[in-house]
Amino acid sequence: MARKIVIVGGGCGGGTAAQFARKTDRTSEITIVEREIYPQYSRCGLPYGISGIIPELTNLIEAPEERLRKSKIDVHLGSTVTKVDAGGRVAHVSKHDGEKLELEYDSLILATGAKAVVPPIKGTVVEGGPSDALKGGVYVLRTIEDAKGIQSLASKGKRAVVIGAGLVGLEVAEALLIRGCKVTVLEYLSNCILAMVDDDMAQMMADALAKEGVKMFTEYEATEILGEDKANCVVANDRKTGEERTFYADVIVFATGQRGETALAKDIGCVTGPTKQITVDDRCETSVKGVYAVGDCTEYPEFITNEPTVSGLGTIAVKMAIVAGVNAAGGDDRLPRGFLQTRATEPFGCQVAAVGPTTAQLEQAGMKPLIGKVRGFTLPDYFPGRKEIYVKVLAHPDNGRILGAQIVGESRVHMRVNAFAAAVQAGMTVHDFSKLETAYCPPAAPTIDVITIACEAVRVKMDRMSAAAAGQRAS
Amino acid sequence: MARKIVIVGGGCGGGTAAQFARKTDRTSEITIVEREIYPQYSRCGLPYGISGIIPELTNLIEAPEERLRKSKIDVHLGSTVTKVDAGGRVAHVSKHDGEKLELEYDSLILATGAKAVVPPIKGTVVEGGPSDALKGGVYVLRTIEDAKGIQSLASKGKRAVVIGAGLVGLEVAEALLIRGCKVTVLEYLSNCILAMVDDDMAQMMADALAKEGVKMFTEYEATEILGEDKANCVVANDRKTGEERTFYADVIVFATGQRGETALAKDIGCVTGPTKQITVDDRCETSVKGVYAVGDCTEYPEFITNEPTVSGLGTIAVKMAIVAGVNAAGGDDRLPRGFLQTRATEPFGCQVAAVGPTTAQLEQAGMKPLIGKVRGFTLPDYFPGRKEIYVKVLAHPDNGRILGAQIVGESRVHMRVNAFAAAVQAGMTVHDFSKLETAYCPPAAPTIDVITIACEAVRVKMDRMSAAAAGQRAS
Repeated sequence: MARKIVIVGGGCGGGTAAQFARKTDRTSEITIVEREIYPQYSRCGLPYGISGIIPELTNLIEAPEERLRKSKIDVHLGSTVTKVDAGGRVAHVSKHDGEKLELEYDSLILATGAKAVVPPIKGTVVEGGPSDALKGGVYVLRTIEDAKGIQSLASKGKRAVVIGAGLVGLEVAEALLIRGCKVTVLEYLSNCILAMVDDDMAQMMADALAKEGVKMFTEYEATEILGEDKANCVVANDRKTGEERTFYADVIVFATGQRGETALAKDIGCVTGPTKQITVDDRCETSVKGVYAVGDCTEYPEFITNEPTVSGLGTIAVKMAIVAGVNAAGGDDRLPRGFLQTRATEPFGCQVAAVGPTTAQLEQAGMKPLIGKVRGFTLPDYFPGRKEIYVKVLAHPDNGRILGAQIVGESRVHMRVNAFAAAVQAGMTVHDFSKLETAYCPPAAPTIDVITIACEAVRVKMDRMSAAAAGQRAS
Repeated sequence: MARKIVIVGGGCGGGTAAQFARKTDRTSEITIVEREIYPQYSRCGLPYGISGIIPELTNLIEAPEERLRKSKIDVHLGSTVTKVDAGGRVAHVSKHDGEKLELEYDSLILATGAKAVVPPIKGTVVEGGPSDALKGGVYVLRTIEDAKGIQSLASKGKRAVVIGAGLVGLEVAEALLIRGCKVTVLEYLSNCILAMVDDDMAQMMADALAKEGVKMFTEYEATEILGEDKANCVVANDRKTGEERTFYADVIVFATGQRGETALAKDIGCVTGPTKQITVDDRCETSVKGVYAVGDCTEYPEFITNEPTVSGLGTIAVKMAIVAGVNAAGGDDRLPRGFLQTRATEPFGCQVAAVGPTTAQLEQAGMKPLIGKVRGFTLPDYFPGRKEIYVKVLAHPDNGRILGAQIVGESRVHMRVNAFAAAVQAGMTVHDFSKLETAYCPPAAPTIDVITIACEAVRVKMDRMSAAAAGQRAS
């Protein structure tokens, strides 16, 4: 009898899992149940749909229904899994038209994703309405519908306030700027993108915002949204001075993080971990046999610290989905022992890429890295068009093992971080990496690449430290 | 007493060695003896000086004399080391003005580089003249003077013939095309750049040449240069048919390889190896104690095959120079156990990068690699401006270890190869690499990068092979 696989959620996690289940077992019956009305699309692409760089938001759809049909993958859009009978292996589905389905399964894959989180402050929702119905003019960015809403208000000359200066916040801010808005960004912490890179590296992004005319207020806490039917003001508090300030806004976007959709998993009895997300093993299986989970609703060890971590990255969702899809269909695939969290963004002409924990994240895990930070150039000195590029490498103080790296610059940043990703995964030391033969030709890169020079800087520090230690022993 | 270091050759090898010797020992006396009249400049930059992308050839000078003086590095330009007394550790120098010097040394670094090789065919040199005095209109590209000569003849509408379609040949061909010449390239082998990549990957470069209007004739052997005082014709033989063909030319450039300058080294008694270049150990020391050698005049094991190899790459010359400079000054630095030969070029809008041996080179060393080759895109499907990119990975059939990789495309090629360089150096397998978290954001790269998909392709092959083998055992 054909194996039955039910997938809850048809985003990049669910969609990819379906594809790889199909590749693994051509005869299995695969069904996706998706709450939204669109088949798999790229959430990461939404800011570029808002700005118009991608002409239509629906261009972001990556797996149109006919492609799914061709792979014999059933999909129920606008439908919800209301309940799962884990013992009997049946998923109860409520379709958009009210029809109820009972889907038997051998394997269940939870790709339920996450929900954008709005801080519990006054005025974000319609008074007396449902708790997640945001007031007119107030948005998050998670879905095509969210993006449409933001687009409808973000025209030339309008004032936009983005709350949260992480990766999503800045990409939305850039989209709003491209649409001609006057953009203000409020950030609770001391700088933007501190989950991606250290403060000193983040400063280059802050400078890029300033250069592009985007006002960023750091250490500001939004305390209230004003406006009756439609929001028109953000009230925020300067955390340094306690002073209150009011920001007029035609459109307000909260980019204040997300929380995994774990209700169904908990219902089934899947164990959640310290981050309150679903715990999975290296086969992407939850604590309930036959039930897999992938992406934003899960936690998995970070590679260096081994701490359970929620990634929120599309790359990781896809990698988990491949493993879950293969295993759900009877194959055998494994995740690496931890995730590197390789991440990248490039709003405002400032490219940022990083891998591994930041210094703060390492220190929180009780590790104090040695740091090599250098300024270099993308091309040889004599070649026209070279750009500054900054590289920071974090290494283990005892053995020089590369723990993470951060790169910021105007161009040629992102692919450079992939070499560090390989190095972290393979356990390379700064000693090895400082000798790495990088690609060189005058129009593409300098003879000695800045990524190796940053490692050399750590190596020199280590040599000095061991010389000093030897000196102390001798005296 | 201050340590005395004499460096023969002031190119990127000699210049870099001097710098790192200075860093290692602030009190040493460092002297460079350079045959040419220019201080250290970038030979790799010469084609961009010819084309005019770099406005002046002298812009290529990387270590102007005042910078050397600031580092207290003596340099004698236009000067030759005529003889070395290795027992007494004295180098005899003949300066450009006829003055003779005797330079004592503790360490001697040979950075004598290489000489462009012209095949021994009729008509390349002036009859009755010295054997290395090329006829008017005939050039090689090794020095600023060579570049000036080519530039002087390469104006709009002139016919140029480049002999040799390796990296240098194609970069010169592009420069000539940019200057408005009609360019023909003759290649002895079956395709261009076969020392860089496999034939199938090279074909994309061949297509780029054709698209730009450069005529390439493969399997053609130049047999004679015609013209009395000035060359005006290349006679060549079609190696497939034996047919002879004549190519009119206003300017002829031989890009047919190079041979290390080892005469002085042999004089001193330095052992040379199977490639006839100077053998060095991992400290860059020759068989003669206190005598180091770096760059194009040396050979060193290739990382995968362990075969002694001449690189000709600037990156490797520089890496050797760092090690030689440090050790010559009393420090302790080591080369890796072999060189990866990471290499890159991008003429005619076709970017090529590779690391490790080609398939032919592996087969010659008795290894038959498993191959994963995929076509992908630089950006997500929905993002405007994405370009095709081809990745080929060579892996060990027994264990999946990555032996080499080749990438060709219109953009974002070079930095992608650095991840493979790290992987080869660290001994990563296609299994590990296929799970690598690469940098992703929509304007920069797709969720699953083509570099990992190529490894996945090998992994799938290996799984099939072991399944087939298991099947055979079972039957």
